[in-house]
Amino acid sequence: MNLREPHPKASLWRKSQGSRQEVLRCAHVTMVTLALCLSGVNSIAQTVSRESFAHAEVLRDRAMAGSSAMAIVTSLTTEVGPRLAGSEAEGRARAWALSALTERGFANVRNEPFEMEAWQRHEEGGEILSPYPQALAVTALGGSVPTEKSGLSGEITLFETLEDLQSAPEGSLSGRIAYVGHAMQRTQDGSSYGYFNKARTAGPSIAASKGAIGYLIRSVGTDSHRFPHTGALRYDEGLPKIPALALANPDADQIERIAAEGKPLEVRVWVDSSAVPAAESGNVVAEIVGWENPQEIIVIGAHLDSWDLGTGAIDDGAGVGITMAALELIKEAGLAPRRTIRLVLWGAEEVGLLGASAYRDRHAAELDQHVIGSESDFGGGRVWKVTAASQSEAGDALFGEIGRLLAPIGIAPGSNDQPGGGPDMSPLIAAGVPSLRLHQDGRDYFDLHHTADDTVDKLDAASLDHNVAAFAVFAWLVADSDVGFRAGSE
Amino acid sequence: MNLREPHPKASLWRKSQGSRQEVLRCAHVTMVTLALCLSGVNSIAQTVSRESFAHAEVLRDRAMAGSSAMAIVTSLTTEVGPRLAGSEAEGRARAWALSALTERGFANVRNEPFEMEAWQRHEEGGEILSPYPQALAVTALGGSVPTEKSGLSGEITLFETLEDLQSAPEGSLSGRIAYVGHAMQRTQDGSSYGYFNKARTAGPSIAASKGAIGYLIRSVGTDSHRFPHTGALRYDEGLPKIPALALANPDADQIERIAAEGKPLEVRVWVDSSAVPAAESGNVVAEIVGWENPQEIIVIGAHLDSWDLGTGAIDDGAGVGITMAALELIKEAGLAPRRTIRLVLWGAEEVGLLGASAYRDRHAAELDQHVIGSESDFGGGRVWKVTAASQSEAGDALFGEIGRLLAPIGIAPGSNDQPGGGPDMSPLIAAGVPSLRLHQDGRDYFDLHHTADDTVDKLDAASLDHNVAAFAVFAWLVADSDVGFRAGSE
Repeated sequence: MNLREPHPKASLWRKSQGSRQEVLRCAHVTMVTLALCLSGVNSIAQTVSRESFAHAEVLRDRAMAGSSAMAIVTSLTTEVGPRLAGSEAEGRARAWALSALTERGFANVRNEPFEMEAWQRHEEGGEILSPYPQALAVTALGGSVPTEKSGLSGEITLFETLEDLQSAPEGSLSGRIAYVGHAMQRTQDGSSYGYFNKARTAGPSIAASKGAIGYLIRSVGTDSHRFPHTGALRYDEGLPKIPALALANPDADQIERIAAEGKPLEVRVWVDSSAVPAAESGNVVAEIVGWENPQEIIVIGAHLDSWDLGTGAIDDGAGVGITMAALELIKEAGLAPRRTIRLVLWGAEEVGLLGASAYRDRHAAELDQHVIGSESDFGGGRVWKVTAASQSEAGDALFGEIGRLLAPIGIAPGSNDQPGGGPDMSPLIAAGVPSLRLHQDGRDYFDLHHTADDTVDKLDAASLDHNVAAFAVFAWLVADSDVGFRAGSE
Repeated sequence: MNLREPHPKASLWRKSQGSRQEVLRCAHVTMVTLALCLSGVNSIAQTVSRESFAHAEVLRDRAMAGSSAMAIVTSLTTEVGPRLAGSEAEGRARAWALSALTERGFANVRNEPFEMEAWQRHEEGGEILSPYPQALAVTALGGSVPTEKSGLSGEITLFETLEDLQSAPEGSLSGRIAYVGHAMQRTQDGSSYGYFNKARTAGPSIAASKGAIGYLIRSVGTDSHRFPHTGALRYDEGLPKIPALALANPDADQIERIAAEGKPLEVRVWVDSSAVPAAESGNVVAEIVGWENPQEIIVIGAHLDSWDLGTGAIDDGAGVGITMAALELIKEAGLAPRRTIRLVLWGAEEVGLLGASAYRDRHAAELDQHVIGSESDFGGGRVWKVTAASQSEAGDALFGEIGRLLAPIGIAPGSNDQPGGGPDMSPLIAAGVPSLRLHQDGRDYFDLHHTADDTVDKLDAASLDHNVAAFAVFAWLVADSDVGFRAGSE
C-alpha cells in the first residue's frame, strides 16, 4: 500500500481504503452524487468508491476555478516558440518539458528518444508573373522538395477539387503547375479536415502523376487572412517529387479571379528546404504512479512538436497545457490513484505521428496494460461532447458516470462505441488500446491551424480550464478504479 | 446652356431650368422632401431646386440598391494589387485608372504627373537571439534605411510610451535598440491614430537622439494577428537615420513577456531598402463638367497609391471604388450638374501627401474656385456622421439639407464648423478650400491598415454602396447649386 495523505485542500474528502466493497451512502452528498445515488449505480459502486467520485467533482470544480494550463502554454510558446519535428527547437521543447514536469514533482519524468528524418524550411515565396504581376502569400507544404534557386515558373492549370485533378488525363499537366482550389468549410467537430486535407497530403503526387512540375493548393483553412497554412504532404514512391505550396485564402481568391478572366496565368514560386536524414526527436513522459496497480496505465497527453510558422499555441501548446495542468491538479490535490496516470508529450506528430509510433513500439510489451487513453490536440475550444469505445459492461457504466460528472459543465455524453481520442492515440488504438475523446469546439481551429498566426494570444484561459476539468475527471476516475474497457476485462 | 436630357431611369424627375427662382411645392413629394417643405427651407429653396433635391434622393436610393464600388475595388486590387508610391506598380495603377475613367465616359480624364523620391522595400526580417531564439514577424517602416547585410543586432531597451522614450537621458540608448510598446486602442472615428502613430513617425529620430542604433515599435494597429503594420516614418535632419521596424502585435506581446522576466533581450533585425531619387508619381483626374459654372469645382476622390504589403483594398481601394462609383452613378443617371464635379485619385499619399501637395501647386490659380472637397480614405465601413466647415449662411443651410437627405440611411449630421475630409484634403484646406467629411465607422480599420492582410475579401459591398450614396448626394447637391461655403460667398 502506498496511500498518501490527502492534500489539505481536499480534506473534505477522506480517502477510503479498499473502497471497492464500499456501499454508496446518500448522506452529505452534492447534487451530482445524489443523482448517482438515486439512479442506482450499483455495478459501478462496486468498482469505484464514493470518495473517488467526490474527488472527481472537486477536481472538476477546482479546474473550472482556474488551472495552470494557460501559464503552461504561455511558457512553452514564449520560451521555446516554434518547435518543428526533429529540429534543434524541438529538442529545446523537450528540455523545457523535462524541466516543467520535474519541477512539478511528477514521477518517472523522462525523454524517450527516437530517430527520424527531419525536414527544414529555409526560404519560400511566390508571385504572379502575368497577367497581373504581384506577390503571393505562399508557404511550402511540410516535406516539399526545394525548387531551383531561381524558382519554378509555369502556367497554372486550375482544378476545383482533388477529384477533378485525379480525373485529368495522364500527361495533361506536362510542364504546368497544378492548382486545387476547393475551400474547406467550418465544422464544429473538425470532421471536414479529413476530406479537405487530402488535397494537401495526396495532391502533390497525383499532380506529378499527370506530369505537373509544381503543385499549389488553396490553404486547408477556414480564415480569410493572408496566412498560408502549411502541413505535411506525402510523396508516393516512384513518382517525381514536385515542389508543393499552399496559398493563403485571399491569394487563392486572387488566382481564381484572374483565371476566371480566361487569360493564361503564370506564376513563380520558390522553396529552399532540406532533409536531415538522422535527426533526433523524442517523447517526454511523466507519471503519477498508481498505489494499487501501478502497471495499469491511463494515458493522457498532447504533442510537443509544432509547425515552424507560428509558436504552436493552439496546435498543440493548448493540449500540452491542458493535460499537464490536469495531471498537476490531481497531484496538487494530494490524490493518489489506484492505477498510474501517464502523461505523454509526443514528438514529431505533425510529420506522421512518429512519436506515437515510437511509443507504441517501445511500450509494446505493456500495451495490454494500457487501460485507456486520450490526447488533447484540437486547440483551446471548450469541450462539448465526450465519446469513448468501451467493450465491457463496467466500462460502459464508468463512461456513463464520467458523462454525468461532466454534464454540469456543459459536456454531453455521446456514443460509447466510437474509438478516437486524438491523432497520437491512433497507433495505440490500432494496437487494441481503448480510447476516450473529449470533443472540443473547433469552429475557429482551422482559422489558425498550421499558420504563423498560431500564437498564444488566441487562447482563452477559461476555455482551457474547461478542458482541464474534463481531463482531470476522466483521468482520475478511471485511474482510481479497476474498470477495464476491453472485451472480457470484467 | 448645356442641359442634357434626363437619363431614362431618372424620368420620374424632370430637370428644371432656371430653378433658382422656383418655389417648393408640397404636392407629390416623398417623406423627405415633405419634411423639407414643412421645415420651411426658403433660403435654400432659392439656391437649390426642388428637382435637384429629388435627384439626390434618387441617387441615394440607387446607390443603396447597388453600385459599382465593389467591382471597381476588386478590379484595382486584382489587376494592379500593391502600388507603392513612386513605384512601377503605382504607374500601372494610374494606367488602370485612366482606362477605367475613360471607359466610363468622364470628361477631361488625365494624369497630372509629379516627381518624388521613392522608397523601395527589398527584404526584411527579425529574430530573438536571446534568451529564447525564435523568429519575429516584423516589417520595416516606410522610409527606413537599410541595415548592414548581416543585420543589426542589439539589446533592447523597452519604453511603454513615446513620452517615456522622449524622457530618456541623452546617450542612454547608446548601442541599443529602442522599443516603444504602447498599444493603440479601437475608436469608431479613428481619432486615436493621430496620437499613436507618432511612435511610428517621430519615434525613430527621438530614439536616435538618445544614441539608439535601431528602433522597434509595437505595430500601430488594433488586431492581434501576426501582421506587422508598416507606414511612413519621418527622420529629423541632423540626426542619424537608424533602421526602424514594426512588430506584429503578438510579437510585441512576446517581447514584453520576455522582458518582464528581467533577462537581457537581444534581437537581430534586417532591412534591405533603397531610395529612388527621381521617381514618377501622378494624380489621375476625371470630371463631369458643370453646364452653368464649369470653373467652379467640387472635389471628391481617394488616393491611388497603397502600401506594398497588401493589395490596398481598405487603404485606399475602397475610397477609389466609392468615389468613382459615386461619379459614375451621377453620370449614368443622365444628370448634369451646374458646376463641375472633379474626381481626383491622388498619388503618393502614404509617404507624405505628395500628390495632394502637387495638386495644390498645380491648381493654385483655381483654388479659389474650389467650392468644397471631400476624400474617402478610411476603409469600407459605413458612414455614421457628416461634418463640414461652412462659413456662409447658404452653406450652413445646404449642409443641413445634405444631412436631412442622409438621415434616412442612418447618417447623423454633426458639427458644421469642423474642417476635415480626408488626408489629401489637408493641403487644400490649408489653402482655404472648404471641406466636408463623411465619417466612416473605423472600428476595424486599424486591424488591417498597412498590413499584408489589406485585401478585397475584407470589404462588404453593401457598406461601400452606403458610402457611394453619401458621396453622390453630397457631390450632386453642391454641384447642382450655386451655394458657396466660404465667408462672404453669399
